[in-house]
Amino acid sequence: MIYNQSDILAFEDLYRRNFVNSLTGFKSLVLIGTNSKEGSMNLAPFSQVIHVGANPPLIGILFRPHIVPRHTFENIIQTGHFTINHVHEKFIKEAHWTAARWETSEFSATGIKEDILENFPAPFVRQSKIKMGCKFLESYDIKANGTHFIVGEILMVLCESEVIGSDGFIDLEKAGTLTVSGLDSYHKTRKVARYQYPKPGNKVEEI
Amino acid sequence: MIYNQSDILAFEDLYRRNFVNSLTGFKSLVLIGTNSKEGSMNLAPFSQVIHVGANPPLIGILFRPHIVPRHTFENIIQTGHFTINHVHEKFIKEAHWTAARWETSEFSATGIKEDILENFPAPFVRQSKIKMGCKFLESYDIKANGTHFIVGEILMVLCESEVIGSDGFIDLEKAGTLTVSGLDSYHKTRKVARYQYPKPGNKVEEI
Repeated sequence: MIYNQSDILAFEDLYRRNFVNSLTGFKSLVLIGTNSKEGSMNLAPFSQVIHVGANPPLIGILFRPHIVPRHTFENIIQTGHFTINHVHEKFIKEAHWTAARWETSEFSATGIKEDILENFPAPFVRQSKIKMGCKFLESYDIKANGTHFIVGEILMVLCESEVIGSDGFIDLEKAGTLTVSGLDSYHKTRKVARYQYPKPGNKVEEI
Repeated sequence: MIYNQSDILAFEDLYRRNFVNSLTGFKSLVLIGTNSKEGSMNLAPFSQVIHVGANPPLIGILFRPHIVPRHTFENIIQTGHFTINHVHEKFIKEAHWTAARWETSEFSATGIKEDILENFPAPFVRQSKIKMGCKFLESYDIKANGTHFIVGEILMVLCESEVIGSDGFIDLEKAGTLTVSGLDSYHKTRKVARYQYPKPGNKVEEI
């Protein structure tokens, strides 16, 4: 079936959101923890998160247009710091629930526990097995739809050493990290294979 | 275990690449098809792909610094069009192999078949069950490391109608779309649940 842009634009709103949000495939699923400049804690789920670089370690996040209050975006810009926390099956319902329009902190409201670690100026998720403390670096306003792409520097990583391989690869499956598709579908994973660095002459072999 | 930025910067190069590339969690896995301005076809795997917007349908891709030839990036900037193709288990080895430094087109070299559809000016992957034709819109140079974030408009989507739900959600698991972690680890998925739109008063319920 072929859907042209005019077909997609003619879809009912929620249908189009579900459809287009599915097109990028399986996505990163993280909770971003921030403090407001008044010191109240915020936690929200994000799936528009990408690797930007390893040296220095950088991460990118896309935020929706800042035309209504976006606490996470505002807090990052105003305080300069945020945490990124992987989501596991044990608290997936609570993680999803943090997206509701809470008047109070999502931590106390949903039962997700905060951790303040090493004096880092943003809250971590206690239940999360892989988490990072990050510092805001750059923000770009996307002309086409008013979204904001921000780049942050990874200042610290908290991760149990038993999920880290001898080559630095983190076994996310062993850690129980989930992935998301569309707006609201959560998935576990099952490894197919790791493959060696590809070269023209050699057939692809498993690691 | 806590790794500070100085620990991460002190890692051996490949160790750091494996480690930091794992931190964003499971990632989108797509093949991007392009034509050079001379008309030769190119195909390469990407995992730095994010949803940017649904109305209009927009997608974002991060490219590494353009200090050595980057065919996909150059072709997109020069010709203005590209395709995004989901990857399934049946051709995962070939998809990985497209990342090798081929002198010729990755299509003929790896055995992945091209499709020219609806006169779209970039090649699609025949084996792919979910694919899109896109037009280049914007490019942003990331100051921190010289990468490039580009935004494209989705002009057409090809997808079997039986994987699209009544609410527009595309069942990527049914389609067999894979996900990637780190640099080289490929995974299938198993759905945990879809959850309803979250509200403060209501416990989270499955769809």
